[in-house]
Amino acid sequence: MRELLNLADYRAAARGRLPASVFAYISGGSGNELAMRDNAAVLARMAIVPRALIDCRHGHTRVDLLGQTFASPLLLAPVAAQGLVHAEGELATARGGGALDVPMVLSCMASQPMETVLAEHGGSCWLQVYWQGSRARTLEVVRRAEAAGFAALVLTVDTPVNGLRLRELRAGFAMPADAAAVNLPAHAARALDVPAGGSRIFQGVMRSAPTWDDVAWLRQQTRLPLVLKGLLAVQDVLRAAALGADGVVLSNHGGRALERAPAPIRMLAAARAAVGDVLPLLIDGGFTTGAQVFMALALGARAVLIGRPQVYALAVAGDAGVARMLRILRDELELTMALAGCATLADITADSLLSLASAGMDA
Amino acid sequence: MRELLNLADYRAAARGRLPASVFAYISGGSGNELAMRDNAAVLARMAIVPRALIDCRHGHTRVDLLGQTFASPLLLAPVAAQGLVHAEGELATARGGGALDVPMVLSCMASQPMETVLAEHGGSCWLQVYWQGSRARTLEVVRRAEAAGFAALVLTVDTPVNGLRLRELRAGFAMPADAAAVNLPAHAARALDVPAGGSRIFQGVMRSAPTWDDVAWLRQQTRLPLVLKGLLAVQDVLRAAALGADGVVLSNHGGRALERAPAPIRMLAAARAAVGDVLPLLIDGGFTTGAQVFMALALGARAVLIGRPQVYALAVAGDAGVARMLRILRDELELTMALAGCATLADITADSLLSLASAGMDA
Amino acid sequence: MRELLNLADYRAAARGRLPASVFAYISGGSGNELAMRDNAAVLARMAIVPRALIDCRHGHTRVDLLGQTFASPLLLAPVAAQGLVHAEGELATARGGGALDVPMVLSCMASQPMETVLAEHGGSCWLQVYWQGSRARTLEVVRRAEAAGFAALVLTVDTPVNGLRLRELRAGFAMPADAAAVNLPAHAARALDVPAGGSRIFQGVMRSAPTWDDVAWLRQQTRLPLVLKGLLAVQDVLRAAALGADGVVLSNHGGRALERAPAPIRMLAAARAAVGDVLPLLIDGGFTTGAQVFMALALGARAVLIGRPQVYALAVAGDAGVARMLRILRDELELTMALAGCATLADITADSLLSLASAGMDA
Amino acid sequence: MRELLNLADYRAAARGRLPASVFAYISGGSGNELAMRDNAAVLARMAIVPRALIDCRHGHTRVDLLGQTFASPLLLAPVAAQGLVHAEGELATARGGGALDVPMVLSCMASQPMETVLAEHGGSCWLQVYWQGSRARTLEVVRRAEAAGFAALVLTVDTPVNGLRLRELRAGFAMPADAAAVNLPAHAARALDVPAGGSRIFQGVMRSAPTWDDVAWLRQQTRLPLVLKGLLAVQDVLRAAALGADGVVLSNHGGRALERAPAPIRMLAAARAAVGDVLPLLIDGGFTTGAQVFMALALGARAVLIGRPQVYALAVAGDAGVARMLRILRDELELTMALAGCATLADITADSLLSLASAGMDA
Repeated sequence: MRELLNLADYRAAARGRLPASVFAYISGGSGNELAMRDNAAVLARMAIVPRALIDCRHGHTRVDLLGQTFASPLLLAPVAAQGLVHAEGELATARGGGALDVPMVLSCMASQPMETVLAEHGGSCWLQVYWQGSRARTLEVVRRAEAAGFAALVLTVDTPVNGLRLRELRAGFAMPADAAAVNLPAHAARALDVPAGGSRIFQGVMRSAPTWDDVAWLRQQTRLPLVLKGLLAVQDVLRAAALGADGVVLSNHGGRALERAPAPIRMLAAARAAVGDVLPLLIDGGFTTGAQVFMALALGARAVLIGRPQVYALAVAGDAGVARMLRILRDELELTMALAGCATLADITADSLLSLASAGMDA
Repeated sequence: MRELLNLADYRAAARGRLPASVFAYISGGSGNELAMRDNAAVLARMAIVPRALIDCRHGHTRVDLLGQTFASPLLLAPVAAQGLVHAEGELATARGGGALDVPMVLSCMASQPMETVLAEHGGSCWLQVYWQGSRARTLEVVRRAEAAGFAALVLTVDTPVNGLRLRELRAGFAMPADAAAVNLPAHAARALDVPAGGSRIFQGVMRSAPTWDDVAWLRQQTRLPLVLKGLLAVQDVLRAAALGADGVVLSNHGGRALERAPAPIRMLAAARAAVGDVLPLLIDGGFTTGAQVFMALALGARAVLIGRPQVYALAVAGDAGVARMLRILRDELELTMALAGCATLADITADSLLSLASAGMDA
Repeated sequence: MRELLNLADYRAAARGRLPASVFAYISGGSGNELAMRDNAAVLARMAIVPRALIDCRHGHTRVDLLGQTFASPLLLAPVAAQGLVHAEGELATARGGGALDVPMVLSCMASQPMETVLAEHGGSCWLQVYWQGSRARTLEVVRRAEAAGFAALVLTVDTPVNGLRLRELRAGFAMPADAAAVNLPAHAARALDVPAGGSRIFQGVMRSAPTWDDVAWLRQQTRLPLVLKGLLAVQDVLRAAALGADGVVLSNHGGRALERAPAPIRMLAAARAAVGDVLPLLIDGGFTTGAQVFMALALGARAVLIGRPQVYALAVAGDAGVARMLRILRDELELTMALAGCATLADITADSLLSLASAGMDA
Repeated sequence: MRELLNLADYRAAARGRLPASVFAYISGGSGNELAMRDNAAVLARMAIVPRALIDCRHGHTRVDLLGQTFASPLLLAPVAAQGLVHAEGELATARGGGALDVPMVLSCMASQPMETVLAEHGGSCWLQVYWQGSRARTLEVVRRAEAAGFAALVLTVDTPVNGLRLRELRAGFAMPADAAAVNLPAHAARALDVPAGGSRIFQGVMRSAPTWDDVAWLRQQTRLPLVLKGLLAVQDVLRAAALGADGVVLSNHGGRALERAPAPIRMLAAARAAVGDVLPLLIDGGFTTGAQVFMALALGARAVLIGRPQVYALAVAGDAGVARMLRILRDELELTMALAGCATLADITADSLLSLASAGMDA
């Protein structure tokens, strides 16, 4: 096997190793995959201006996040059903993240018990939660996370309805029973009984979707830090801040929710300007290099969540693969920082960026 | 046969099933097909910003159009000679539309009698009319439509001269006799006798083209709502409004008329701003997904006409195909609305759109 | 042979029929062909907004040019050595142009005597002149053109040095003896003796290049209208006007001179604005459809010169080919005018144009 | 072998002749090669507006640089280890440069003794220096260069850490012993011992990287002109000027350092505006034609360094190849100047440039 030098290599290796339908499930986006492609396209259109001769010998990549300090501005994004690609699933991923001091945001759709995952990680993990159709059922999951010792809750709000993921449909993907979500109460299957003449979406699925009122209620129910994941509109970010959220993840769900959602990084600078410096903004969506992580930080992100590459690395080499993937990203980030003259994350600002579409000779 | 999951699938399936020359006739545009390509290109360059946590459980897609209410902001665009692709032609299309409460704008070049088509549809249909070379002959068609019970007239004004459709010419397409226009008086063939030294176009075909005076005259002849189809310039839309038109379809005739006409959606916001909220603006031209329909509504369209996909669906599966194709579009629209936080069409505004060419990091 | 429906068809047919080296000579540009590609690229990026319901029955394409009226705003551009592709060379081209009332701008590098070409055309022709290294030798050619009855002189000023045309070099093209320039005095070969240490270009070729002083002198020597061909900079167009030129051809020599010259149509509107309405601006460079001709007229050109397509048509079908090619262009122009609501050339303005790069949704 | 007509031909010929791993080493960039591609992409997006009828018979391409006059605004960029591609390595390159009066900026990583290279060149050479980990070790190299008679020092500051050059890694490239750097003291290998818990980059490599203080110190140590190579940010260029540098080379190291560094030519006009006319700005990065050199001069560069093409020409034809490659570039520059109406370098200004992205019809 050729040496795995960057995250694209992990993707290629995973593709060669996973059943086509599983790879389609992981790698695909919704509809015509416009959101997914925008994630990559936007990241390609920015340059980083190097700065020379700056003393970086005391440099590091440490970051403060929800009151804790981590080795790097990276998190493992919540990805469901990791039993699909590796026998140990989330347990192995957790060990890989723990080894690099990278917090894992465990999906509530995990195929391993949340308590065990947390133990395997050994450090700080957050629990991602989908609304469970009612306040009571949602609270059940929250209480279990509190009891287990998760350090924060991440409520995903961008998929009250699932996008239509054609790639996996055409590949005939079906979730196998042994990758099922073991942490959710059995009654949580979404209600789909639709009144006559009603819409399957509006009067069906959306009946069990959460609203801002539900989030305000949830905010009152727990003392854990609460992060909202899947906002993009600046107004939504402002509302999250006003409601007392401890963080926001700008995300288009890796291009798997709204087919034409813009890349989150398009919205980052405006969101940062709107909410000021206090609320941590995190981001995900197509990040595969340390230089891209640098760009997100420069535009105002506190940290970056890594989704699909986590699964590719897990598929290729288990816990060691996840750790190595995270190490590559961090090395690339350090290299970028050193060449851009940034010794710490605080030194990374938008002054380092240059839009290739509008700058220089095109001005 | 692979499952038909979106409108692109219907196109592919129709391509595999129709004679190459017939597919060329349907799918082609005029000249070098720049207008047709612009339709697709522009639609690709816009994002929709999702909004989270909005209560959509009372959502619907109903629309008011010329005094009637329909289930969705979709219409079947006028497409000539559907006998070409299906034995029942427009009869089957009408049943498909009727099943989904989608009005059919029947082409005056239909291969089935207009009265029968209307009966098969069972709901509201509009009749599309080409100018028949003289006021008297045009009035004959109008009177028949009134008698039959059509709910509106749609006068197409963008093709006084036909574009040169190279694709069908090169494929050797010829309209078969049994797809002939059965609803037009035999005398309506266009005059082509050109005075010596005259131009075949200016002194030939254009002699039987309508003018604004003819439209003003027609407006006085009928109490049916009158819609002008094929305007793009804002001045023309304003003139249609001043003249008493009940609606306008922004259209470049699917890229089959002026080779370099812009995509109608480029003109939509300016036209909406110019005429205000009263005059309904409809649109067609390359729409193949519900998200694209959403974008047109966001820019000011009241509804979207679906042309070529109608014929592809008819070719693939007759009335059931047409109904299924319309259902897919409406489902995609509902999904887009739910994820964009729009419970009704009135909630869809330009605030939801983001031009990928100019926004975010490129600004 | 497949039917020739547009100018691209003539190109393809000529390519199939000519020796590869001859086709390379005709079709190639200089250097990396950036100027040639820009000609095509810019023309692709503009839309024409249709106007409906305008009375065009008295329409025509007639144009006044240097005191004469022609059937259409088209001219045959000067192209050297047409004996290369057809036994009769320029004689056949002239007959084709004459049949459509299209003036021929005969190249001074023609392979047929200028007097015979003029007779075969039967109408108005202009003679293109290269500076012949000295005033006296240049005047010889001018006097012969006056005596022969040419209606105007076109002095080409964009190639004091030839561009490096790699395509023909790689194809091993060499000009055969029987395509030689029969209208030039034998002594006109350019001086290439370079002083020691001097540059082959600056102290060699450029020693026999004309200057503005030479043009001012030439302006005094003849009463024929004088047109300068090959200007692009607005300042140069203004200087030509001040000096008494009767017209200017904006041109990058079909992309065969300066490798990176912009497409002339990029400079047209600014040049028109600078010199006002009096001085006729003509243009060439990549025009292959009537809609493109329409765009040039809309931006301020009085007429368009057709270069390479002339040679392709000549190669494919001699005089009839040239006439047919010109007829196609004129028909396409008339079709465009009718659909854009322009009955005469005077009705064609920039209001009809829409830049696809900056308009509509991208604004 | 097909005739070598331009620098792209030399690249193709070298590719056919060198081992794949060596070609990968020379031709590759760092990471995903975004910086390297930007170099080419930006150069493609500018046009040069020709000027006609200007007297150029006294034209030349001479340039003053650090107090000396050279035949053309070209320099041979520092390229390490030329023994890789030719038995004589830098000796042959030097002869080729000397023959065209083109200064060689000899890499301190050369595989031939600097004194011999200088002698083979016969004219003016500059020595490129990497910081040698300490002031004392760096000074050793500087003193040897002074003693040898180099005319200037060029300190490269853009690669305190090497970029990850995937292409050569994947091709299995390893530097052979006989291409080793013969001019550097053996002790100069970079320190890589990293304290426990430290970063290989920040606490490892960056410990031996130079800072602005080191450059200020170096400025005091030598009377040779000092040029800083590898700046891009305007602030860095200003600081270099303030510190007494005699010149700056805007460079992204041919795309081999920071993966996403912008093309230097994007920064040129701003840097020139910031520092005024006194400090000479040189540039490199993807220049392969004389017209591109013209563009850099128009935007404010005094001269252009030629890197990879130098090695390709050396590989293909030794000293004669290098000389021929430089001659082609100069001929192309002269041709461009003549057609753009610029008799000397002083006549080349930004007035000649037109951005293809923003000008003309797109405005």
